[in-house]
Amino acid sequence: MQTEFVVHTQGPGLYEFTSDIREWADQWSADGVLTLFVRHTSCSLLIQENADPEVQTDLQAFFERLVPASDHPAMSYLRHTYEGPDDMPAHIKAALMPVSLTIPVSQGRMVLGNWQGIYLFEHRTAPHQRRVAAHLA
Amino acid sequence: MQTEFVVHTQGPGLYEFTSDIREWADQWSADGVLTLFVRHTSCSLLIQENADPEVQTDLQAFFERLVPASDHPAMSYLRHTYEGPDDMPAHIKAALMPVSLTIPVSQGRMVLGNWQGIYLFEHRTAPHQRRVAAHLA
Amino acid sequence: MQTEFVVHTQGPGLYEFTSDIREWADQWSADGVLTLFVRHTSCSLLIQENADPEVQTDLQAFFERLVPASDHPAMSYLRHTYEGPDDMPAHIKAALMPVSLTIPVSQGRMVLGNWQGIYLFEHRTAPHQRRVAAHLA
Repeated sequence: MQTEFVVHTQGPGLYEFTSDIREWADQWSADGVLTLFVRHTSCSLLIQENADPEVQTDLQAFFERLVPASDHPAMSYLRHTYEGPDDMPAHIKAALMPVSLTIPVSQGRMVLGNWQGIYLFEHRTAPHQRRVAAHLA
Repeated sequence: MQTEFVVHTQGPGLYEFTSDIREWADQWSADGVLTLFVRHTSCSLLIQENADPEVQTDLQAFFERLVPASDHPAMSYLRHTYEGPDDMPAHIKAALMPVSLTIPVSQGRMVLGNWQGIYLFEHRTAPHQRRVAAHLA
Repeated sequence: MQTEFVVHTQGPGLYEFTSDIREWADQWSADGVLTLFVRHTSCSLLIQENADPEVQTDLQAFFERLVPASDHPAMSYLRHTYEGPDDMPAHIKAALMPVSLTIPVSQGRMVLGNWQGIYLFEHRTAPHQRRVAAHLA
């Protein structure tokens, strides 16, 4: 069974959509594997703690420092800059974090740990509609 | 077919459990795919060289330098610090390395390369029991 | 259905093999999931933008700076150096980027976004034959 989730983003940060996935996967009652795949090269999928929102703020802060905007002096070696100072850093972050995730499903339930949430990690500044393909079998 | 592996950790480092997986997967004699999924947000799954143990030491040393403890001056921007100086860096490392792995199985054997071992990479200081969900189909 | 792709590399960089995969997957006309798995610990699989080749140059430049060769002063803490100055950095890059990818297939077509290409990211200097196991079901 397949579907596509759309996550609307308003700038960099983590957008949780665990409950959307759970609602859809509820039609499934057997064992299986859920595959998620994000159809873009400037955002990521991420499983992270969903208890303290400061974890998400800190994650974003770390990656902003690891991969600054391309108009930052430390990034002057970048060549792909014509799509804006946030574009090439977004591609780099997309290389550092997952484009696909696979989650076993046991008797219809994803085997997520207690504090695990599923996020779309947006790396671009402008609003985007991000499409995530899902397959459960 | 599904199971859960438990990996007991005693501080940061790589813990190989390839042989546990192989022993379980031996019940399977056909083609398929093995999915591994770690049910935590402060450790990772990793496939790495299992020939020279210094590769594992060096990997840990690199990530310690890339993401120092949150009481290190370079990390003073972190906010999620109340679970200890090793907690938020552990979440960051968990974002940088896999939470899930998928390995094709051919006629009952994982298609691992000659030197590939499967590791739980522990990022926290205190001992933990790490649960890894497995699905083979 | 299973196969193995061989990607011939001539030094560090991204080698696209999307069309090889598409040609093979064309035998499949139903829904499913494609699993790719690279059988080495010193190169990576990567899905990235295939429009502007400077994205690939910049990706390589970023990772060269993040993980310099082991004879660089900043990397003097590395111990696994006897296989050459590019070997341990290659293992580190292989930890930072995917060893496996899973891509949903809908009515026989991979659900790749418009600009997504599938790459073997070579981290070593010498020419290599890189083997990528594929499973589609």
